[in-house]
Amino acid sequence: MPASAYPKSARPALIVGSVAIDRVATPFAESDNLLGGAASYAAIAASYFAPTRLVGVVGGDFPKAFWKRLQKHGIDLSELRVDQEGKTFYWSGKYHEHFAGRDTLEVRLNVFEKFSPVLSSTMLESPFVMLGAIMPTLQNQVIDQFAAAKKKPFILADTFDLWIHTMRPDLERLMRRIDLLVINEDESLLLTGERNLVLAGQRLRQMGPKSVVIKKGGHGSLLFHRDGYFSISAYPVTKFIDPTGAGDSYAGALTGYLASVNRSDFLALKKAVAYATAVSSLTVESFSVNRLSGAGRKTVDARLKALVELTRF
Amino acid sequence: MPASAYPKSARPALIVGSVAIDRVATPFAESDNLLGGAASYAAIAASYFAPTRLVGVVGGDFPKAFWKRLQKHGIDLSELRVDQEGKTFYWSGKYHEHFAGRDTLEVRLNVFEKFSPVLSSTMLESPFVMLGAIMPTLQNQVIDQFAAAKKKPFILADTFDLWIHTMRPDLERLMRRIDLLVINEDESLLLTGERNLVLAGQRLRQMGPKSVVIKKGGHGSLLFHRDGYFSISAYPVTKFIDPTGAGDSYAGALTGYLASVNRSDFLALKKAVAYATAVSSLTVESFSVNRLSGAGRKTVDARLKALVELTRF
Repeated sequence: MPASAYPKSARPALIVGSVAIDRVATPFAESDNLLGGAASYAAIAASYFAPTRLVGVVGGDFPKAFWKRLQKHGIDLSELRVDQEGKTFYWSGKYHEHFAGRDTLEVRLNVFEKFSPVLSSTMLESPFVMLGAIMPTLQNQVIDQFAAAKKKPFILADTFDLWIHTMRPDLERLMRRIDLLVINEDESLLLTGERNLVLAGQRLRQMGPKSVVIKKGGHGSLLFHRDGYFSISAYPVTKFIDPTGAGDSYAGALTGYLASVNRSDFLALKKAVAYATAVSSLTVESFSVNRLSGAGRKTVDARLKALVELTRF
Repeated sequence: MPASAYPKSARPALIVGSVAIDRVATPFAESDNLLGGAASYAAIAASYFAPTRLVGVVGGDFPKAFWKRLQKHGIDLSELRVDQEGKTFYWSGKYHEHFAGRDTLEVRLNVFEKFSPVLSSTMLESPFVMLGAIMPTLQNQVIDQFAAAKKKPFILADTFDLWIHTMRPDLERLMRRIDLLVINEDESLLLTGERNLVLAGQRLRQMGPKSVVIKKGGHGSLLFHRDGYFSISAYPVTKFIDPTGAGDSYAGALTGYLASVNRSDFLALKKAVAYATAVSSLTVESFSVNRLSGAGRKTVDARLKALVELTRF
């Protein structure tokens, strides 16, 4: 969306994370040379709500069409660094039958191996920041830069099971420094040792983040906040193609919505979670960002309205 | 509750099903000589909303304390037949770690083996009926009696996986004769061959029932109705003791609420599903019907209010 289309209240949303070229196989189809990476999904999702900036790195092989796709959404790519010598981060994965889990078939970190985000003073002015599930050490480095610049943006962080297993102290430090942790069901149980999601959410908040969102895929998501607990159903998707990026677009939409209203109180977070639910339901309806990118704001709003309808009694 | 405490609109709710003596082992504790059976849970749950009648059978060993427990809720037990020669249906089960499934350790049908519900003309006047998950042939027999008496009550039926495997034609006939099928997630997929709950719910409606509810345990439930789709989150239970009877009290509360307002339109069904969610969240907080029976209507209403709060945005 052009900046002029955002509400007056809108502030910039910064997305830091991976930009990748994916190959995905589902039980029904496969596709390669796909625009992927958490930051791609998240930035497109955020761009429905607020001016969006992406900090990441790609190689000299990064297709022109992918640049154009991100630019079409008005995303500021001035700090999406291009390492001409190297190749873009490559990920190949295969989903199990009934989408019950997935295997990573191949990962080539390529230029992402040496990724160390250094933010310009412009980027450090961003009041809403999403840290994709890069290494917690890198996530902490980004926060260090904000701290050094005496900036205190709203920070949302994602993580994933590998970091819970291998970099727990860094992850725990991160958790004490962020406003919102967005995590999936299995990871929430792994990280807390709980077996009950309500207890897991409460425990995660005790570990540091002001608020916590637990994503349950097709069962919706839960928000834990000082002022209360919120639970939202999933949008009833029947054309389920590829779940890759659903969590990233969820977190991106959440960040974008908060940036658009320039608020982060419980009420704003509830509505952000609802928008995140609507937006991520689009992502799973195609490979890559195709449906997410093509849907348009009207479709997003229609899904939000449907979510209101189908949960009211 | 005494009949005088029900709203003026309230009509009688009839519950047909098993009354049992249970032994239950969870990963944390075990308990025996428990009041169990679908009809016990369902009738107590229904009694929070409307005058409730129970049709079933017990043996001469059925404890006085269990009679008193049911009577305390004002449940009409005039057609809870006592077979003095025999023993009460006995069930013993053990839940797996993390409550991921359960094994039936022992079943003694006893007097329940020859259970064949014959309804008096009084019972046949009941305008709201729940058929617990007894054999579909018996469920059909009950409907035959209503048909012979030219009565058309609202009929809710439950079922379970054994009947899907062994008595499918009878179950399919039943489905064409009922107003509401209440079924759990796994059974809905098993019965339809679908992998997506939204598609499963749509398919189940095509098989006959006017409406369908799919229960997802800790993830809430889904309602499929001609006029729309409704999804409700679970009440956030943190003191999870024993899930036995949760589905039965869900269906009982649903029936009781509809009877209390003497309606079965989409709006009434949504509210009934919400009350069912509130009531069944109590059941899992103790062994047997202890918490369900002891909670009182104020607690039920408080949980409903909490459900409204935690799902609104």
